Amino acid sequence: MSFALFGLAVSPGIAIGRVQLVSHATLEVSHYTVPVRQVEAEVARFDAAIAAVRGELAGLKTISHVGAPSEVGAFVDLHMMILADPLLCEVPRKIIAERRCNAEWALVQEMDELVAQFDQIEDAYLRERKQDIVQVVERVVKALLGKPGRLTARKDSDEAAIVIAHDLSPADTIDFRQLRIAGFATDLGGATSHTAIVARGMSIPAVVGMHHVRQLVKDEDLVIIDGTRGVVIVDPDKQVLEEYRLRKTELELERNKLKRLKTTRSETLDGEAISLQANIEQPGDVAQARDVDAAGIGLYRTEFLFLGRDDLPDEDEQFEAYRSVVQAMRGRCVTIRTLDVGADKALRGVARIEANPALGLRAIRFCLSEPKLFLMQLRAILRASNYGTIRLLIPMLAHAHEIDQALAMIEMAKTQLRGTRHRFNDDIEVGGMIEIPAAALSLGVFVKRLDFLSIGTNDLIQYTLAIDRTDEAVAHLYDPRHPAVLRLIHQTIQTGTRAGLPVSVCGEMAGDPDLTRLLIGMGLRQFSMHPAQILEVKQEVLRADAAELGARVARALRFDEPERLREALEKL
Amino acid sequence: MSFALFGLAVSPGIAIGRVQLVSHATLEVSHYTVPVRQVEAEVARFDAAIAAVRGELAGLKTISHVGAPSEVGAFVDLHMMILADPLLCEVPRKIIAERRCNAEWALVQEMDELVAQFDQIEDAYLRERKQDIVQVVERVVKALLGKPGRLTARKDSDEAAIVIAHDLSPADTIDFRQLRIAGFATDLGGATSHTAIVARGMSIPAVVGMHHVRQLVKDEDLVIIDGTRGVVIVDPDKQVLEEYRLRKTELELERNKLKRLKTTRSETLDGEAISLQANIEQPGDVAQARDVDAAGIGLYRTEFLFLGRDDLPDEDEQFEAYRSVVQAMRGRCVTIRTLDVGADKALRGVARIEANPALGLRAIRFCLSEPKLFLMQLRAILRASNYGTIRLLIPMLAHAHEIDQALAMIEMAKTQLRGTRHRFNDDIEVGGMIEIPAAALSLGVFVKRLDFLSIGTNDLIQYTLAIDRTDEAVAHLYDPRHPAVLRLIHQTIQTGTRAGLPVSVCGEMAGDPDLTRLLIGMGLRQFSMHPAQILEVKQEVLRADAAELGARVARALRFDEPERLREALEKL
Repeated sequence: MSFALFGLAVSPGIAIGRVQLVSHATLEVSHYTVPVRQVEAEVARFDAAIAAVRGELAGLKTISHVGAPSEVGAFVDLHMMILADPLLCEVPRKIIAERRCNAEWALVQEMDELVAQFDQIEDAYLRERKQDIVQVVERVVKALLGKPGRLTARKDSDEAAIVIAHDLSPADTIDFRQLRIAGFATDLGGATSHTAIVARGMSIPAVVGMHHVRQLVKDEDLVIIDGTRGVVIVDPDKQVLEEYRLRKTELELERNKLKRLKTTRSETLDGEAISLQANIEQPGDVAQARDVDAAGIGLYRTEFLFLGRDDLPDEDEQFEAYRSVVQAMRGRCVTIRTLDVGADKALRGVARIEANPALGLRAIRFCLSEPKLFLMQLRAILRASNYGTIRLLIPMLAHAHEIDQALAMIEMAKTQLRGTRHRFNDDIEVGGMIEIPAAALSLGVFVKRLDFLSIGTNDLIQYTLAIDRTDEAVAHLYDPRHPAVLRLIHQTIQTGTRAGLPVSVCGEMAGDPDLTRLLIGMGLRQFSMHPAQILEVKQEVLRADAAELGARVARALRFDEPERLREALEKL
Repeated sequence: MSFALFGLAVSPGIAIGRVQLVSHATLEVSHYTVPVRQVEAEVARFDAAIAAVRGELAGLKTISHVGAPSEVGAFVDLHMMILADPLLCEVPRKIIAERRCNAEWALVQEMDELVAQFDQIEDAYLRERKQDIVQVVERVVKALLGKPGRLTARKDSDEAAIVIAHDLSPADTIDFRQLRIAGFATDLGGATSHTAIVARGMSIPAVVGMHHVRQLVKDEDLVIIDGTRGVVIVDPDKQVLEEYRLRKTELELERNKLKRLKTTRSETLDGEAISLQANIEQPGDVAQARDVDAAGIGLYRTEFLFLGRDDLPDEDEQFEAYRSVVQAMRGRCVTIRTLDVGADKALRGVARIEANPALGLRAIRFCLSEPKLFLMQLRAILRASNYGTIRLLIPMLAHAHEIDQALAMIEMAKTQLRGTRHRFNDDIEVGGMIEIPAAALSLGVFVKRLDFLSIGTNDLIQYTLAIDRTDEAVAHLYDPRHPAVLRLIHQTIQTGTRAGLPVSVCGEMAGDPDLTRLLIGMGLRQFSMHPAQILEVKQEVLRADAAELGARVARALRFDEPERLREALEKL
């Protein structure tokens, strides 16, 4: 039966394909159909996992005799008993056979049954013991899956998958770029959630903030993702499918037209050169940047080298990554941002629990508190600077003393390298992210100490409005066109430029073609965005008259009233 | 043995007294000494609690036969077994007798032993089962204490207590004002943590961010809290004690001198009247405000009516609270801020889990999403406005449409009341908190719609610097003198005043006598602070020359460089 679900349109375009459910919690297991001839094997797979866990528990029981508290043996017995519950070790076998589904999914269905029974218990402590059920099931799921599930390439199909998940973390999406994905839809997330950014980056249609899509679709369902209107249509009827196929073809034609702009010089009608650079997360992204002839790498987010792994990359590994990027860019400038962990990007092993991670020990604050880690990255970047043009970019600066400390660390890294065989560019340029209101409001301090500025609009908006852009409850209040936001950005561009410093914007705003004219009017001449957005923005650049826009934007920004401001911006 | 511990000085003064350990988690139980003659009774109390829990579990076992999963009975058995572990039901009896300590404490010591044994277990799932131990112990502690422990008045001592805790939440401190407390020290917290604010408010010396004080002191230890230097001296030797007693007497003399300023007119040397108003949290605080002749209530934080209870106050209960305040103030103006929940002040029953509560559904955002709750409060405030002068203050505004929606809700509340016998002031003034950078940067929108502005410096600083003031790891970066912060405040005062709107500051900065001259120089004429700070600030007002300070501050704020700015501010 066909039905439509609505969410937040975060990455335009149309995708049509089969659902692949993805999970990031251990127990959000995938659900897929098992061919009839494989049902028996699937049941056997299930039995083997149960047997494996039984063995595991028996092993624990033996160990638990030595020195451990006497309760431990009882716990193991209890978990054995849970494992032997027919709901967990018998019923799933039937489910696999009858519904032809995978073992993990069958097991989790029954676990949910059992947990629901626990939820009926009045005694709060006893009710909480459903955790033991979950733990036993987790053991089995681990035995089935190896380790918590990442998306894997579809073997038996040529079709690209539509990824549907409750939520996706930055780490979850790291592998996505190696896979063929047609579209995304998630229950959580706002316009600037990581999922949205990744989707736009990969030019893949996406809808987020759908609340219940994860529950309402099944693996292999045919779905349409309309990332322009924020709709997901499940099991569409023929007519709808036909219409969407047509629109999809039209969009593809438009995109192909854009490709012809690749070699066109990026300048406005009145001859202002606009540098369109690429944001990248991994060395592999350089290819995409070169495909659209990006003028350079305006933001290399190095934290992705550190995420989704158990160890930390050492100096040589980092150096290799940075060097490969700078060499692949063949003389074009690469701006490397130092580690920006914290908030939604926690580093494994150094995670702290913070009430408000976005206001906590992040980015440069974190790096200054971990000087060894920071120096190692600085040395790796400096060494790579010997192989091309690199600029160093420091995130989350707010205080003069933070800039001074960061610069001192860079000097220290240079001193450390001087004693070695490694060469580096002693005159490497150092810039600061302007992404905290305090930075935008005390630019004198930045201009005096740094070589360039880069405005991180996502965080700048987040702090200026006190809105967590990933918090669904308030995401509707996150507004890049708030007069306060526009003034801070305008002021930063103007002040930086007057002081002779290059200023770029590397947040989401830079890649939004609806904002290109506004930013040019504010005086911006350097944009950095996901490579996938460059050509569309270039199209806007080619139609813009910088001088005229400058005058119009200055007039528009005098309006305090959002409605009048919006009106004036629409007329740009 | 005497030793000293260092922390963050957050409320000046000296306190000398005996430690009373306070907990806010169930299992952070107090520790106190039991007189020899009561040891037997304490053991009996312990035995009774064990017996009670045994009975409780037996009851659960009976119930668990009906309909519940078969595992439930096994869980109860397991918990029975844990309860019967000699470590938990025997050893504590000995500890009580030998160490003459209270039963809860003896029990938790042994629980920690047992939990430590579990921590040795290699298997992660099994290790986690220490939770069952904790749950059983929690049952016993509840049987011992009734419900999770609040501080109670000391019965057998005339001395005021020194409260020492790992951390204190706003709810924990609600009862403190009824008790005699000489000083505070906590492991967590920064200069603007709730503990610090409460301590300053009660004029009680306090040191926070001590890391380990909770572990290193015992109940009834003699300690000195030096809230000026940030030191806690445990078990001081005679000479140190004598010195501190002397300094304490001197400080008390100074404080008495201040009291003579109560009836002095609050105006500067050049005749500018400065209104010094009080921040209050509960109707009972009015007495303190009147004691220092506060010019009005500049901030009545109504959320404290909602915290620390299981239900919500209904319209009549709220009305009675607001009316009692306005009547007690006898014609002086009372500014009532509507509910500011969220972040560290979660409302029971409506709590949500947010990654960054400070950037989430707080204050007016929350109220607009819960219109019933909001309308109820607005009606209660409006009804109270019939009994004196009330102004309505809306927190956390950032967008024009939020102001418009809030004003529409106020109109709706008025309409609802018109159909009843309740009268209200139809011309009630409505103001907005300026505490989000976006608000301070788009004042035109506020000035046009509202009757007055109130600057909430704590949050304004927090968002402007992207620093969670309660996060120990970054608290050192929270700086009220950051040039960006000072400019926003200056601008808000100037713009509001020019537009003819009263502007007040009601954050922590208003009550800091070191900042009085700066704020007067910025043009501020209305301060609101904890009543305990009013006389000290008045002393500064009496010494100030507003015109001269205005010129000096304008000059100082031109400096971007923090050092030069600080220098100029020091010379004010």
